[in-house]
Amino acid sequence: MHPFTACTFLLLFFAALVSSTKLESMTIQHVLVPIVMEAEAKPFVDHLGLELVEGFFPPHTPFLAYQGEHHNCKVTVVTMGKDTVYGTGMDNVGTTSAALGTFLALSRSEADGNPAQLVMNAGTCGGFQRQGGGIGDVYLTTGVAHHDRRIPIPGFDVYGIGKLETLNPTTMAKTLGYKTGICTTGNSLDWVEKDDEFMKDNNASCKDMEAASIAWIAKMHDVPYLGVKVVTDIVDGPHPTQDEFLENLHSAAKSLQDALPKVLEYVTDKTGQSDQEL
Amino acid sequence: MHPFTACTFLLLFFAALVSSTKLESMTIQHVLVPIVMEAEAKPFVDHLGLELVEGFFPPHTPFLAYQGEHHNCKVTVVTMGKDTVYGTGMDNVGTTSAALGTFLALSRSEADGNPAQLVMNAGTCGGFQRQGGGIGDVYLTTGVAHHDRRIPIPGFDVYGIGKLETLNPTTMAKTLGYKTGICTTGNSLDWVEKDDEFMKDNNASCKDMEAASIAWIAKMHDVPYLGVKVVTDIVDGPHPTQDEFLENLHSAAKSLQDALPKVLEYVTDKTGQSDQEL
Repeated sequence: MHPFTACTFLLLFFAALVSSTKLESMTIQHVLVPIVMEAEAKPFVDHLGLELVEGFFPPHTPFLAYQGEHHNCKVTVVTMGKDTVYGTGMDNVGTTSAALGTFLALSRSEADGNPAQLVMNAGTCGGFQRQGGGIGDVYLTTGVAHHDRRIPIPGFDVYGIGKLETLNPTTMAKTLGYKTGICTTGNSLDWVEKDDEFMKDNNASCKDMEAASIAWIAKMHDVPYLGVKVVTDIVDGPHPTQDEFLENLHSAAKSLQDALPKVLEYVTDKTGQSDQEL
Repeated sequence: MHPFTACTFLLLFFAALVSSTKLESMTIQHVLVPIVMEAEAKPFVDHLGLELVEGFFPPHTPFLAYQGEHHNCKVTVVTMGKDTVYGTGMDNVGTTSAALGTFLALSRSEADGNPAQLVMNAGTCGGFQRQGGGIGDVYLTTGVAHHDRRIPIPGFDVYGIGKLETLNPTTMAKTLGYKTGICTTGNSLDWVEKDDEFMKDNNASCKDMEAASIAWIAKMHDVPYLGVKVVTDIVDGPHPTQDEFLENLHSAAKSLQDALPKVLEYVTDKTGQSDQEL
């Protein structure tokens, strides 16, 4: 198969890690790209010339969908829209809206007869000095977990952390010059000591507010998950997260605009040079 | 109108508090009752003789629905089912699954042409000594907020706390001998000091893991929300939450079995003796 004639590649998994999908070959004709904030999504949406799809989501939801083609593959970018429930007009950040928006988008793609075969969650994140992270770094994530769902009852403790090992992007990351690591998710932009204990236990290289909930929905639908995250702030650095985040949000969004087409092209061209990973 | 001939009552709101619903009269023909855990729901489901509805939810979701009639009103109890994504088999507690399950149930009731007109979220909660709470107390909640979504950026801070003042149950609570107060929600069974600062700011009488996300979905659908919560443990008491919770879970579920029919009967009989509250 010529790499440019079809958007096809072998999705190769560690069978033991992604038990429900196992090693198999899949044709990728549709990639769903949840990007929570409008400001994170806009440069990429504009760059690919994606168009807003009216009526993609139920009318009482805030979510937005943009669709188009790239590299012979259908691309649906979903953002979580703006808050109207609390009257703030802010972006609907956090796990509940991300889970719901991603669920509805996957369901819609199935109902349309063109189900998404990959959830590529893109956005900003915090990085960690202790893991060698720096502002502007692009990470392809290897797994997700929560750091703010503490339920100290056997069984529920594992459920709360919600660790999922996802699509292995090691070879792709080497090829494209990106880093790899685990993304830890919590509903706060900042963190407290107890959060950090869990972030360390999760061996996190990225900290965000949605990844683990989006990966939960992807696994529920049996669709592989890949996280593409750009560092806006250093979690274990000297500056308050909110200051660094706001300062670097727009440059990070530009960085996503650059990185996401490369990742899309890589996964749609990949024809399975390795048995174990992308 | 005879109170027993139809499940009708005037839903009366503080217009300023529940801006999207305002003062209006509604006929309650269908009440949706999200109860997260099977153990919380079972005595009530059995008591009312509700039956499991196969295919109520999309096939890849874990949620369960039980339907029947009580007091001439359709009742749909929804539980969040058991975890299969992480392989723990535990109940799907926390905000993401509660939001998704409630959203899908409301959407299904609309699609069936019999939309739920009230979301009555029932379950266990932590109580607070400092608010006069004791184990076994039944609370009808007056509002909800989050205590673990800290986003210190103007606008996002308000969004994160996500405070909603909901249906005012003061008169009903006096009539039935129940307490009233605000329910604060977080994804952990335990709490850290920073959580407690937010719980105090929220003026919380109840602490749970789902209410604020369920109320968020209800408001998105423009359906009023009422919380019915039974105290299993004392948040600011001497015992670890998990020990008290497990010890009192089954007695609390029996207490819900007793309280929920009374609340259902009250709201379906209420014909608007007050302009301001139930």
